[in-house]
Amino acid sequence: MDENTQVLRLGEATRPSPLLGRRDHFVPEGARVLLGSTLREVEPYLRQGQLPPSFEQAGPRERVFFDPKGIACGVVTCGGLCPGLNDVIRAVVLTLHYSYGVERIYGFRYGYAGLAASQGIAPLLLTPAVVEPIHEQGGTLLGSSRGPQELDDMLQTLLELNVRVLFTVGGDGTLRGATALAKEILRRGLPISVVGIPKTIDNDLHWVERSFGFATAVEEATRALVAAHVEAKGAFNGIGLVKLMGRHSGFITAHATLANSDVNFCLVPEVPVSLQGFLGALEERLRQRHHAVIALAEGAGQDWIDGEVARDASGNLKLKDVGAFLRGTVERHFDGLGLEATVKYIDPSYTIRSLPANALDSEYCLALGQHAVHAGMSGRTNVMVGYWNQHFTHVPLELVTGQRRRMDPSSELWQRVLASTGQPSAM
Amino acid sequence: MDENTQVLRLGEATRPSPLLGRRDHFVPEGARVLLGSTLREVEPYLRQGQLPPSFEQAGPRERVFFDPKGIACGVVTCGGLCPGLNDVIRAVVLTLHYSYGVERIYGFRYGYAGLAASQGIAPLLLTPAVVEPIHEQGGTLLGSSRGPQELDDMLQTLLELNVRVLFTVGGDGTLRGATALAKEILRRGLPISVVGIPKTIDNDLHWVERSFGFATAVEEATRALVAAHVEAKGAFNGIGLVKLMGRHSGFITAHATLANSDVNFCLVPEVPVSLQGFLGALEERLRQRHHAVIALAEGAGQDWIDGEVARDASGNLKLKDVGAFLRGTVERHFDGLGLEATVKYIDPSYTIRSLPANALDSEYCLALGQHAVHAGMSGRTNVMVGYWNQHFTHVPLELVTGQRRRMDPSSELWQRVLASTGQPSAM
Amino acid sequence: MDENTQVLRLGEATRPSPLLGRRDHFVPEGARVLLGSTLREVEPYLRQGQLPPSFEQAGPRERVFFDPKGIACGVVTCGGLCPGLNDVIRAVVLTLHYSYGVERIYGFRYGYAGLAASQGIAPLLLTPAVVEPIHEQGGTLLGSSRGPQELDDMLQTLLELNVRVLFTVGGDGTLRGATALAKEILRRGLPISVVGIPKTIDNDLHWVERSFGFATAVEEATRALVAAHVEAKGAFNGIGLVKLMGRHSGFITAHATLANSDVNFCLVPEVPVSLQGFLGALEERLRQRHHAVIALAEGAGQDWIDGEVARDASGNLKLKDVGAFLRGTVERHFDGLGLEATVKYIDPSYTIRSLPANALDSEYCLALGQHAVHAGMSGRTNVMVGYWNQHFTHVPLELVTGQRRRMDPSSELWQRVLASTGQPSAM
Amino acid sequence: MDENTQVLRLGEATRPSPLLGRRDHFVPEGARVLLGSTLREVEPYLRQGQLPPSFEQAGPRERVFFDPKGIACGVVTCGGLCPGLNDVIRAVVLTLHYSYGVERIYGFRYGYAGLAASQGIAPLLLTPAVVEPIHEQGGTLLGSSRGPQELDDMLQTLLELNVRVLFTVGGDGTLRGATALAKEILRRGLPISVVGIPKTIDNDLHWVERSFGFATAVEEATRALVAAHVEAKGAFNGIGLVKLMGRHSGFITAHATLANSDVNFCLVPEVPVSLQGFLGALEERLRQRHHAVIALAEGAGQDWIDGEVARDASGNLKLKDVGAFLRGTVERHFDGLGLEATVKYIDPSYTIRSLPANALDSEYCLALGQHAVHAGMSGRTNVMVGYWNQHFTHVPLELVTGQRRRMDPSSELWQRVLASTGQPSAM
Repeated sequence: MDENTQVLRLGEATRPSPLLGRRDHFVPEGARVLLGSTLREVEPYLRQGQLPPSFEQAGPRERVFFDPKGIACGVVTCGGLCPGLNDVIRAVVLTLHYSYGVERIYGFRYGYAGLAASQGIAPLLLTPAVVEPIHEQGGTLLGSSRGPQELDDMLQTLLELNVRVLFTVGGDGTLRGATALAKEILRRGLPISVVGIPKTIDNDLHWVERSFGFATAVEEATRALVAAHVEAKGAFNGIGLVKLMGRHSGFITAHATLANSDVNFCLVPEVPVSLQGFLGALEERLRQRHHAVIALAEGAGQDWIDGEVARDASGNLKLKDVGAFLRGTVERHFDGLGLEATVKYIDPSYTIRSLPANALDSEYCLALGQHAVHAGMSGRTNVMVGYWNQHFTHVPLELVTGQRRRMDPSSELWQRVLASTGQPSAM
Repeated sequence: MDENTQVLRLGEATRPSPLLGRRDHFVPEGARVLLGSTLREVEPYLRQGQLPPSFEQAGPRERVFFDPKGIACGVVTCGGLCPGLNDVIRAVVLTLHYSYGVERIYGFRYGYAGLAASQGIAPLLLTPAVVEPIHEQGGTLLGSSRGPQELDDMLQTLLELNVRVLFTVGGDGTLRGATALAKEILRRGLPISVVGIPKTIDNDLHWVERSFGFATAVEEATRALVAAHVEAKGAFNGIGLVKLMGRHSGFITAHATLANSDVNFCLVPEVPVSLQGFLGALEERLRQRHHAVIALAEGAGQDWIDGEVARDASGNLKLKDVGAFLRGTVERHFDGLGLEATVKYIDPSYTIRSLPANALDSEYCLALGQHAVHAGMSGRTNVMVGYWNQHFTHVPLELVTGQRRRMDPSSELWQRVLASTGQPSAM
Repeated sequence: MDENTQVLRLGEATRPSPLLGRRDHFVPEGARVLLGSTLREVEPYLRQGQLPPSFEQAGPRERVFFDPKGIACGVVTCGGLCPGLNDVIRAVVLTLHYSYGVERIYGFRYGYAGLAASQGIAPLLLTPAVVEPIHEQGGTLLGSSRGPQELDDMLQTLLELNVRVLFTVGGDGTLRGATALAKEILRRGLPISVVGIPKTIDNDLHWVERSFGFATAVEEATRALVAAHVEAKGAFNGIGLVKLMGRHSGFITAHATLANSDVNFCLVPEVPVSLQGFLGALEERLRQRHHAVIALAEGAGQDWIDGEVARDASGNLKLKDVGAFLRGTVERHFDGLGLEATVKYIDPSYTIRSLPANALDSEYCLALGQHAVHAGMSGRTNVMVGYWNQHFTHVPLELVTGQRRRMDPSSELWQRVLASTGQPSAM
Repeated sequence: MDENTQVLRLGEATRPSPLLGRRDHFVPEGARVLLGSTLREVEPYLRQGQLPPSFEQAGPRERVFFDPKGIACGVVTCGGLCPGLNDVIRAVVLTLHYSYGVERIYGFRYGYAGLAASQGIAPLLLTPAVVEPIHEQGGTLLGSSRGPQELDDMLQTLLELNVRVLFTVGGDGTLRGATALAKEILRRGLPISVVGIPKTIDNDLHWVERSFGFATAVEEATRALVAAHVEAKGAFNGIGLVKLMGRHSGFITAHATLANSDVNFCLVPEVPVSLQGFLGALEERLRQRHHAVIALAEGAGQDWIDGEVARDASGNLKLKDVGAFLRGTVERHFDGLGLEATVKYIDPSYTIRSLPANALDSEYCLALGQHAVHAGMSGRTNVMVGYWNQHFTHVPLELVTGQRRRMDPSSELWQRVLASTGQPSAM
């Protein structure tokens, strides 16, 4: 694992930042943020006289790599919707325009498809007037799609349009595409920087404390849990079942459970339970209290369901629909027992994904976009903007792709979920 | 059609209202509200020297039938959840207690099941302290269920508990049960009044301008339409499909369409369209604009789907799931055409039903509950509280059961929907 | 009082509506809506063989007066902000453009000032693209101002720009200006129609059941009352005081009080109370319950405060600030008594006024704008669009100006406020 | 500065935690969280072979100090309202009851006044049933007040009621009171623990990344800024002025400015500006754009206003009302210039303070309450629960009292504010 940041140099001299004179404060070269934040993590290094691992700190530099005059920049959004996408696009465009003076900024449409020359999808020209009000809307001005495109096909577009910094906003699959592109560019010695902005509504990327849109998503998820609770209490042996986002990681489900005190069962991918064990615990709950609320991550209980596993265009596993499965299974289970029970099933995913960012996420997206621009203009490439231990950072893309951040069942987070729900720690 | 209100008299003398001295204003016996509100509707009566049809006006009377001392009252909520149920319960209890001095008020649990002596479900004793905060929550404190119970079984409970006024909150099926019960009581000459409070989130009851919870439902429905629009624009040829409540009547779907300008197709039960016609119009829209939003009432398109028709416990038709059907059909249709298209399907029904009432509905529920109590204490029975032409009214239950209010395709309402969506008037 | 509608004819033939063939349904000439809705109101007319009073029903006619080709129309918004102004502007523009084919539509800026040629404020050219998204924002795209302008000055602009229908959105003062303008135009025999759209957040215009923005305002006002209640309970003898809009009429204050059960004192202009009586009742409440919530209309208690009465540019009385006065008076009163008490004072007026319309108001504004266009194109003038007894109407402007709708203390509305607050009916 | 945590031992043996067997995971004694998070902060220690400064990590320990049987605990809330107070009370009570088995939990009413024996205010007995629904309401179930009480007076209550752990929820003044009490208890050798939970809506406490309620406050503050923007645009030379909380620190104002793109001037206590400079910049803005939005922290511009400085009961400086001052000054300034301008002034403070916590804050309060209980039961005293570098911590109270966290004008945060508003960096 190498935490060092790649920087374009290519024999060209750097130049003073256009920000000089317009701000007093720059991040010095060499500023670094610790990966660890506990004594236990840094002590071994100290004992051996070594510096503990760290990331380069993000922020504006006094000297930059690119001359804003004459270059173009581009931004692309990929994968599923997430609150804050438009804030990020807007922040990138406004910062490039007003802070650095870049005049041509392209918005590539419908994900990497819009970058591929062969697809013939014309990019949008992004000006301050175009992006000014977009953050009040959810979704992405640029549209999105899943899946990669040929590197040559995308490079052709970048070269034709003279794009020197490409900002890719997306999750694991997107960042894998970004690192492949960045490496090919480095291999060819081209003066093009690729900077990632991590987007995962599931909050499952490493080295990012909290991904943008996550706070908004948890807020809205709790509305669905409240509805499920009301429905559950409204019928004799009523069961409110809410499926939430979380393919590999149950963070939304766990945090929404903690933000709402009505959940009785929180089911996440990281903590497998047996279907029979769960049905037994649910029956016990109904007999005692006559209603129950279940928060279910979409990636939980995949082993309950027979069938082949498929993959989508981005290479992500296509999940089996555990929500519909569980609704049917629970209904049949209590029917078989002769126990009257009603399941009310809520799937709020699209309503959550498509919200505009709340205030916290909106401000966070602004900072991510600004720091991505600072990173790109200073020549950083194959890098992502992270947030870690109260600082924005440059994270090499290889460190975050190919593996997911998952909830540790022994963590305080999951222990708090168990305390809050009162569910058995093993089922 | 007889608009006269039935009143218990039974040879007993009426007595002065407990409200005397505590308010200056009473509704005089004989006050009536016109059914018609246009000149065209009253002119024929005028020509014939007749009074035009009218309902008795609701409100407190100077003389009442029941002596609050020693009697009990009861309230029951039936059918699906609807914003405002708890406001109604609360208004009934607070008015009985504080205005009339009724001391024992029972809340029968889980619909008519809780009234049936044979079911053995103990009622809740409802005091001001119990109901004070409940309107801040959605749903119903009492729980609900569908379906009727035996008249004798329910009468036994009423007589055992000395219940003299029963308030039934529910829709068409519930009010049919209430009128059957009221008639049996009248037949037996029992001093028990049955007063209905009309609940239909679909707004499909006659002689009620706007049913409680409807404004809240339309407000939340528009949130789902916004989400569908954002999702639709977020993908190439994206289609946002929202299924809304409306078994026989498309009022929620039509009003939400008018409150939100993003809907391109509004499909309701009252205006049948051919599936092929609709798919053709949708294809045309996608080819021109590359995204579309569909608002679909749950009762629309039932003829598109094969299969037997079933009924639920309340005798309501069990609808076939037109949302899932249309999603699949649209996907296959465009797949067959080789046209890339993505359907994002949102079913917000439970989230809508379970909301607390908004301010308008909350105030409206308060008035409905107050007027129901005034009606019951004055001996009105087999009657429902309506709102019509700016006045609260007493509507004989027979006038509202067994038929639904439906949207007239030639009405300004539907004409406005056509103007707003731009959809073809026939498909 | 004359309920007949003035119509431009000027010897010119009318022509078929551009809507013919695009909708099936038109309102027949002669359709009228009753002013009264109770038997008591119409019975005297019936006895004398007369038709009861009625308004012309609004809606599209088969024949219209203006030829859309070549004409311009204009819209102006005056007075204070109100939720829904942008919806109305948008509805007028979209209906003129898409339904009638009017190509030039001017938005006059900053109220009547923007109409006065002498002020030199260029109007905005309003196209569908300009108005499409504006309803998602509160306020008015056009800006607003108070006060009249010279008739000649405004007429000059209308004639120069060939404006044939002017839509004026505003309250009492604005409509007085509109009727003066319309009468001058009729006097000169000019082919220009003036159509009012009633705007009053206070809901104090006659012959309008509910003014647009009112439901949104009441909803937000209840948020302030909830805050006041929380603050009141948070301190020993805490007093939450909320000043709400309502210069002459306490409708917002009364309805918000009924939509929120926490208010203990509702003070409105229509029901004068003595300051000493109120302070005594408040003291009594504090001694018993140690907190209190007061909802105060801005026009209440004007006689408590010394000082001259001024008028603003629109000729409205400049109210004395009863909120600040009462906060100070209450603090001094309890200080004088040696009774610890804390007043938390909330004035949410600007936050309420500037909201976008909620779903109900948004749909209502759409209908008002559409009906105003139908009225104007058919040659109606000196008229306002009303809503009455479930129908949209044409109301002669003289009937609504110069007098306010006020709450009747003997009405069910106020009686319900007394029942809900428990406050003494006289103080 | 000493980061070590004080722990009661008093010669008594500790005992196994009641949590043993009910959770797998405990925080080991000795776990510590770094104060610094950059290489620059830890490198000097490394060079000298020292451990860098750190806080004790919070969380449940395998051995505890108090035997839950027979003891009582108490909780008190002090100072101004803040979203999440009820969540904290609820978390403390539920954790003491369900996790540790403490049976008697007192809620002291109206701040430290309720702790003082001489005041005679009976505490509430807090059970799970009492606290279960309170987090859905803003404010504090216990009420609050400002100012200290005599140590002896409070100790008498604690001893009489056998309170062994006291949880004090409050800001700087409250925590000063808590540390004085804890030190007196330690001096007397009493087995009573005092644990602080930091409450500051201004986010101005050291060693707490983000105080509870802050995210909710910023969210609501942006609503006021949106209203101010709508009002500003609604009038010619309209000025929207919003006063936000922030006595010494402008965090709410700065973050709300960044979460909302409409602010043109952000005025905070940390960055003094000259009144004339500001008025000049505002005039410039109006001449160019004809509207302006100002976000003003309540502690800004205190030097603009003449007059004596007073202190409130908690010893906090009583701020002069800069909002009213600036409204009047701006109006007079432009009046003097003969420039028409309208100021719309919004003070949303009470509406913000009294909100229930949003999802993020609600979950955070749950964790704070749980960790406070773990700290107290393990014998920690004179300590506060902090959150720092992704971990909950024990922070000695002396480290946080007597000084405020303030925004550094050279920080990225303020630099981002300048970039977002476009305001001059010095005025």
